[in-house]
Amino acid sequence: MKSLKISEAVVRRLPIYLRFLNELNMRNVQTVSSQDLGQKLELNPAQIRKDLAYFGEFGKKGIGYDVVYLIEKIRQILKLDQHINVALVGAGNLGRALSNYNAYLRDNMKIVAVFDAVPDKIGARINNLAVQPMSELIETIHRLKVRIGIITVPAGEAQNVADEFVKAGVEAILNFAPVIIKVPNEVRVHHADFTTELQSLAYYLD
Amino acid sequence: MKSLKISEAVVRRLPIYLRFLNELNMRNVQTVSSQDLGQKLELNPAQIRKDLAYFGEFGKKGIGYDVVYLIEKIRQILKLDQHINVALVGAGNLGRALSNYNAYLRDNMKIVAVFDAVPDKIGARINNLAVQPMSELIETIHRLKVRIGIITVPAGEAQNVADEFVKAGVEAILNFAPVIIKVPNEVRVHHADFTTELQSLAYYLD
Repeated sequence: MKSLKISEAVVRRLPIYLRFLNELNMRNVQTVSSQDLGQKLELNPAQIRKDLAYFGEFGKKGIGYDVVYLIEKIRQILKLDQHINVALVGAGNLGRALSNYNAYLRDNMKIVAVFDAVPDKIGARINNLAVQPMSELIETIHRLKVRIGIITVPAGEAQNVADEFVKAGVEAILNFAPVIIKVPNEVRVHHADFTTELQSLAYYLD
Repeated sequence: MKSLKISEAVVRRLPIYLRFLNELNMRNVQTVSSQDLGQKLELNPAQIRKDLAYFGEFGKKGIGYDVVYLIEKIRQILKLDQHINVALVGAGNLGRALSNYNAYLRDNMKIVAVFDAVPDKIGARINNLAVQPMSELIETIHRLKVRIGIITVPAGEAQNVADEFVKAGVEAILNFAPVIIKVPNEVRVHHADFTTELQSLAYYLD
């Protein structure tokens, strides 16, 4: 799949398609057109057809896409048919909030460990997980086969945490700290910074 | 500017350029090449030159971009040279975490009001703001000239909050609830959903 060089923009839209398709499926809707998808998601239908065509011919002219089949395909493409364990460092408000999303992640992706460097926070419980000290990070990540790390520490500590994640062998990092972190090429980093979201939104103000 | 129809992907990259340029400026670096930007941000230098060319000829061949000038231009394009007031609904862990980002937003963009529907939370203080009841939302938004609304309530309540924001006249909404909300065309919505971030990251796992 990766040899196709699907652009990051497309990869970022797939979970959004998936969320809407899951909603349709829960309402027992069986097919959906690119027009319907486009209207709901405020995207050009031609763009949607192009995005989905990367992965093969899913749609049928005049009928649209089979919802269940498309869900299955997108889940495969995004590797959501695998179990993926996630660890989080930074048991502050944001870390707690993200742990609460576990319910939405279904059974395939799960935050299975939470760490913090502050002694006062060690042992506190967040959604049935006890906050662990950083000294246990590498062993825990190996034992639980954690593949994705989430960083929710202050900006000044983010690079250190990223270095620990890399040492422990995680394959991807989602960084919420408002700072750019550097990792080796083989580790994928997404920056999920609230300030950049707000700043790009400001562009659309009149 | 908007008549240029700059793509959302470009608008989303500009704050990322800005953050790195601000870091360079703090270190008194005066010029930067698209190669340097590309290496730091893991983007193709040609892509960066193309992105910035939308807004005029900023760079000089063989010298690069003037850091201070580029910061100023990007701030203008993103309208960050204006004061923009922001309101937030949902004083839970995520709402508190986002309010803590106020420090990073500098003086131009600020969360100036926090609301919640749960009576127990009214009056609690978050970063010098008292949580207000929803009944005060419209009046407060008018009085403080709030232009952007942030939604950090559970999925089931997000559409109601969006409707209130629209009634109050906000121009843009940043929605953190894991659900698609519908608003009139003239209101811009960005969905900042943690689950979609994680799902798109899973694509890059081996």
